[in-house]
Amino acid sequence: MAGTLRVGMVGYAFMGAAHAHAWRTAPRFFDLPLRPELTAVCGRSAAEVRAAAARQGWSDTETDWKRLVERDDIDLIDICTPGDSHAEIALAALAAGKHVLCEKPLANTVAEAEAMAAAAQQARAAHGARAAVGFNYRRVPAVSLARQLVAEGRLGRIRHVRAQYLQDWLVDPEAPVTWRLRAERAGSGSLGDLGAHAVDLAQFLTGEPITGVSAVLETFVPERPDPAGGHRPVTVDDAAAFTARFGGGALGVFEATRFATGRKNALRIEVDGELGALVFDLESLNELGFYDRAESSRTAGFRRVLATEPEHPYAAAWWPAGHVLGYEHTFTHQVKDLVEAIAAGADPTPSFAEGLRVQRVLDAVAVSARTASVWTAVTD
Amino acid sequence: MAGTLRVGMVGYAFMGAAHAHAWRTAPRFFDLPLRPELTAVCGRSAAEVRAAAARQGWSDTETDWKRLVERDDIDLIDICTPGDSHAEIALAALAAGKHVLCEKPLANTVAEAEAMAAAAQQARAAHGARAAVGFNYRRVPAVSLARQLVAEGRLGRIRHVRAQYLQDWLVDPEAPVTWRLRAERAGSGSLGDLGAHAVDLAQFLTGEPITGVSAVLETFVPERPDPAGGHRPVTVDDAAAFTARFGGGALGVFEATRFATGRKNALRIEVDGELGALVFDLESLNELGFYDRAESSRTAGFRRVLATEPEHPYAAAWWPAGHVLGYEHTFTHQVKDLVEAIAAGADPTPSFAEGLRVQRVLDAVAVSARTASVWTAVTD
Amino acid sequence: MAGTLRVGMVGYAFMGAAHAHAWRTAPRFFDLPLRPELTAVCGRSAAEVRAAAARQGWSDTETDWKRLVERDDIDLIDICTPGDSHAEIALAALAAGKHVLCEKPLANTVAEAEAMAAAAQQARAAHGARAAVGFNYRRVPAVSLARQLVAEGRLGRIRHVRAQYLQDWLVDPEAPVTWRLRAERAGSGSLGDLGAHAVDLAQFLTGEPITGVSAVLETFVPERPDPAGGHRPVTVDDAAAFTARFGGGALGVFEATRFATGRKNALRIEVDGELGALVFDLESLNELGFYDRAESSRTAGFRRVLATEPEHPYAAAWWPAGHVLGYEHTFTHQVKDLVEAIAAGADPTPSFAEGLRVQRVLDAVAVSARTASVWTAVTD
Amino acid sequence: MAGTLRVGMVGYAFMGAAHAHAWRTAPRFFDLPLRPELTAVCGRSAAEVRAAAARQGWSDTETDWKRLVERDDIDLIDICTPGDSHAEIALAALAAGKHVLCEKPLANTVAEAEAMAAAAQQARAAHGARAAVGFNYRRVPAVSLARQLVAEGRLGRIRHVRAQYLQDWLVDPEAPVTWRLRAERAGSGSLGDLGAHAVDLAQFLTGEPITGVSAVLETFVPERPDPAGGHRPVTVDDAAAFTARFGGGALGVFEATRFATGRKNALRIEVDGELGALVFDLESLNELGFYDRAESSRTAGFRRVLATEPEHPYAAAWWPAGHVLGYEHTFTHQVKDLVEAIAAGADPTPSFAEGLRVQRVLDAVAVSARTASVWTAVTD
Repeated sequence: MAGTLRVGMVGYAFMGAAHAHAWRTAPRFFDLPLRPELTAVCGRSAAEVRAAAARQGWSDTETDWKRLVERDDIDLIDICTPGDSHAEIALAALAAGKHVLCEKPLANTVAEAEAMAAAAQQARAAHGARAAVGFNYRRVPAVSLARQLVAEGRLGRIRHVRAQYLQDWLVDPEAPVTWRLRAERAGSGSLGDLGAHAVDLAQFLTGEPITGVSAVLETFVPERPDPAGGHRPVTVDDAAAFTARFGGGALGVFEATRFATGRKNALRIEVDGELGALVFDLESLNELGFYDRAESSRTAGFRRVLATEPEHPYAAAWWPAGHVLGYEHTFTHQVKDLVEAIAAGADPTPSFAEGLRVQRVLDAVAVSARTASVWTAVTD
Repeated sequence: MAGTLRVGMVGYAFMGAAHAHAWRTAPRFFDLPLRPELTAVCGRSAAEVRAAAARQGWSDTETDWKRLVERDDIDLIDICTPGDSHAEIALAALAAGKHVLCEKPLANTVAEAEAMAAAAQQARAAHGARAAVGFNYRRVPAVSLARQLVAEGRLGRIRHVRAQYLQDWLVDPEAPVTWRLRAERAGSGSLGDLGAHAVDLAQFLTGEPITGVSAVLETFVPERPDPAGGHRPVTVDDAAAFTARFGGGALGVFEATRFATGRKNALRIEVDGELGALVFDLESLNELGFYDRAESSRTAGFRRVLATEPEHPYAAAWWPAGHVLGYEHTFTHQVKDLVEAIAAGADPTPSFAEGLRVQRVLDAVAVSARTASVWTAVTD
Repeated sequence: MAGTLRVGMVGYAFMGAAHAHAWRTAPRFFDLPLRPELTAVCGRSAAEVRAAAARQGWSDTETDWKRLVERDDIDLIDICTPGDSHAEIALAALAAGKHVLCEKPLANTVAEAEAMAAAAQQARAAHGARAAVGFNYRRVPAVSLARQLVAEGRLGRIRHVRAQYLQDWLVDPEAPVTWRLRAERAGSGSLGDLGAHAVDLAQFLTGEPITGVSAVLETFVPERPDPAGGHRPVTVDDAAAFTARFGGGALGVFEATRFATGRKNALRIEVDGELGALVFDLESLNELGFYDRAESSRTAGFRRVLATEPEHPYAAAWWPAGHVLGYEHTFTHQVKDLVEAIAAGADPTPSFAEGLRVQRVLDAVAVSARTASVWTAVTD
Repeated sequence: MAGTLRVGMVGYAFMGAAHAHAWRTAPRFFDLPLRPELTAVCGRSAAEVRAAAARQGWSDTETDWKRLVERDDIDLIDICTPGDSHAEIALAALAAGKHVLCEKPLANTVAEAEAMAAAAQQARAAHGARAAVGFNYRRVPAVSLARQLVAEGRLGRIRHVRAQYLQDWLVDPEAPVTWRLRAERAGSGSLGDLGAHAVDLAQFLTGEPITGVSAVLETFVPERPDPAGGHRPVTVDDAAAFTARFGGGALGVFEATRFATGRKNALRIEVDGELGALVFDLESLNELGFYDRAESSRTAGFRRVLATEPEHPYAAAWWPAGHVLGYEHTFTHQVKDLVEAIAAGADPTPSFAEGLRVQRVLDAVAVSARTASVWTAVTD
């Protein structure tokens, strides 16, 4: 069916709502080579998924993701479920020749992620299917601009990366246990949920892999109220902290936590290079801080670039300069880039291999934390 | 046709794109009592309006707004044209019993605005038609929160308002003449385009009318290149500055300009009261600065409230705390509030009467600027 | 007495303490051509002035400023009294051939200021005496740097100045009456105390005179508790607001107030030019904001220049880069510049003529405010 | 000689100038129980030390610190030399019954620091001599306020500390070798120079000791130009990064570097507690960020407390609210606190024992960095 890209989505909660908005919106603002169709959405409860479909604009519903994957009228499977089901769904979808967009983290374990990356490579060779992992923050215009500046050499050799993803929704010890606090569903806590973004951004921005880490993990509140009654253990980390080295010799310091009082969604990253430096904070996502050592020290200083100029990535499709974008635009940009890659027969980024790379770093963090923080190489 | 609100929009450029997005998006995130339908869009060029309709999601097109207004299958006319046509379209639409949403400024002259406000009152009595003017910035969550705090008395008696709407797209003297720089189309320059927003926000936030002004207007670059060749006079103001007094005794200082180098869309407003103070800047639209004198001076300070908490206006419909919104959300919130008012048989805000109030202030500014800045009362 | 500059100071309170610190400290950090000696300080109460002399490091005391002015062992009279006594003391000192440093505002009236400026010119011709007025904020390194950038043409033609001097110490209506709230002592309220600084900085930074104004003055709380019992009228302005034009065509907006809740000492000034823009706030006095239009709009933005580099005015004499300065350094820099000018037989700045220029602007503001804000030229 | 405190200072360069200013200035702004006298300063070059004495206000000079320590007319030895001489001078001074103020870091090795702490205890018992180490940043008003808030329980249980001391003066690989880059003089590089401050502040603010660390050290540029010709190895660290745990269970992340492009003197520290959070940056040293969870989330946010109110530590002695302080005030406050402690026969803080505690942390960092970043306990 030339000219369209028929999408089936699994999961319709927070992430699903964001993805659906992006599938609807991208063709309204970007000239896409394929027109996305919101063909079907899948969820376990028939009533709830029907309500979600109506609200989000899906034409049809399924209650079994296997049925969704088998449908002939679907070209792409968009996986918005918790991490424990990513591998199974993605493998099936790729085997069925579907393109796949999978939410981050790619999987809960390295073994799963390896299987997914291998499957992606096979599906590409066999069917031309494309697979991408949803590190949407790469598509913040200010972040894309930051990557461009590094790639152009404006920072020179990178010396330091400090990255934190800070939230505070667990700071109250009476906040209840949810699936996000159970290892069997979420894999890990702050590490996979927040740390994964920080690791991906750090590798994306520098263009360098993290080669080793030394880490600590912490669960400050070991058990919490169970909404079903009583208390239940928290089996994931509340916070993660680690030092790291990058392929080019830079030193990294990372932190991910749900206990950073007053920080709501502060994914902050600073990159210091021999020729310049960058600062970004997701809570002010339209702004990029840039220090240029080429400037005379008399007038040098961190400048606040409002990344809404027509020259800035994605910005020309939206509003005049100074009219700011929000969180959900990152998903719309992700759809744009993915659809363009699929139409061009090119590999979308980040690939499953890149998602696996992040997973290996997270795994090394967990290993180091279990073994007295000893330096742990990230294997490829 | 119970349960729907059929919309016809006039104009499809920058403002039209923003409105169309809002009509499409509001029902996806808010439980609206009426479902908006994008019935038809109107523009002079048949080819262009068809392209816009496809891109923006309108079911049908018209090339004559009078045809649009006459259509039986339309409940609301959304006016997104330059100011010189607002009055004619709005009057016709109201006479036809349609609801009207009219972009700001309400009109180019007080006389037009008076006619529109009168027509709105008549149409409401005659047909139950509702009319609102599109001061969308009232619907920034941080701004709505600011209004709540003032209304709750958290600022006490208001002493000062300083409001600036700063842009810089005319700072280059070689920027060309467009309709926005011609009085016969735009009515005024920075005053009506930018100053109108500042005046509306100031009156909205304080809950007090501006009662008098003393003003200067300036055209720094009196003629500019005409894209059609040669040069052409600029017949509107490049910048406006005025002092003002509010009904409750507060002192106001206003500025609107397209020559504020480095400011892209900086609608900044500070409100100082006996008990507290507020600061807002549209370039950081998710943030509200709040100083609370009730706090001990030992720990008092302007706090940066990130207006993305579930308790904040509109925010619960979107994403978790800390996930920021953008410019276009203001239009989506405008649609939500307008649809709810229409469904409830209530008056949406800001009304045409409020739009007229802004127009009277702008008129007093123009009068004062023409008469040696002499203090000029705003008449009701 | 070769090599020294013997100083006699009148007044030893807040301003006196700041000046004394500067006289003591300047020779410790700068290589001065003349060594200041703190010869004598004058105050009405013998006991209090003796205590102040001991605390501040003065060798001797006087209780009558006329005695101080007559002393042969004094080369410079430093006037730190309220504005109503500036003229009388300065005229006597100049007549006696002393150099004079006079706190701002130069005087309480234009007539006094004219007499002082004339006397300064005569004393210079007759005795080589030098006179300067204490607009110390010109000596903030960030402000001096700002002036350099404007003078070098980095801003191009100036279009806008917005300047506010915001404090909040009168926001409580129960704050008592002091001499600062009585016209007979202070001349005016916020206008002369705060507005004078804003006007001087605006003219200094732009290098352009203010040629006309349109103004409002306001006394929000017309009477206040008298520490001596009962209530007493406030006879000066609580706040001043005015628009202005500069010699080069720029538009100015000014505000001075003691009712800006939460602002403690916020002298804020923005200068927008065709090629760049500057931002300064005295509450963050080590920082200068600078926007350079020569930069590509892709990487342009307001940069925060920390004015502590060796290249920055005054900074090399102090600490390594990044080690910030404070309020009192402005007085130390003032002493440095004054001593250097005196030793070189050059005119220190700002001169009494410049102080008179500020006074004329303040006078035009008062006139305009009394006459329905009508545009009022500043006469020379 | 009742009523005075006669000071002899060793070293007169950057730190000496700051200390001398403080000895001169403290009695001018604070009512001290003992009046400091700048009795003598010591340096190796007779000519240079005489010039420094004249500039800084010392009455006499010495060229051998042993002579200085032996002088009967000196009560306190102020040690402002590089770290390799701290132990020897301090031990001699304490043995001679002098009070001692020693610049940080206390020593270059734990062994030296242990000897110094022991000597301080003995001298106190034997002579009533008092010893303090110069972690001057504890005396920034905003930092003192931060400590008060933690001590009052406003933050509740501490969960996170992130502390960085960022400078950039080595980012240029052609910057020359100085004594600060040679292990035999400086002991370590960024770790002892910058990291020491960060560690002391973190322990001071939380009131909790660091109990273990996992660290990496890095020398990015292993050899640099020698001003004497040729190149010379850099034998200290350019940067240090480590994770840490505090006594109360909090997780710490630390970084010290001279390669943070664009950061001039950015000692930044964030402390997150169950009930609130604090933020501080030495480049904006008058400001404390404070988030109070007791505030409703509707109006909560990081507030910028300008620590210049009379209620704030040290502030009442200086200027009215909003008039900011600078770097050198920290030394003046240090003198005030030290003189008051000596006069009261009380122990000044931070004691040599606290200085030793910092040294033990730095040592654990070095050990961990040498042993594959393995977790290393800080022994007491």
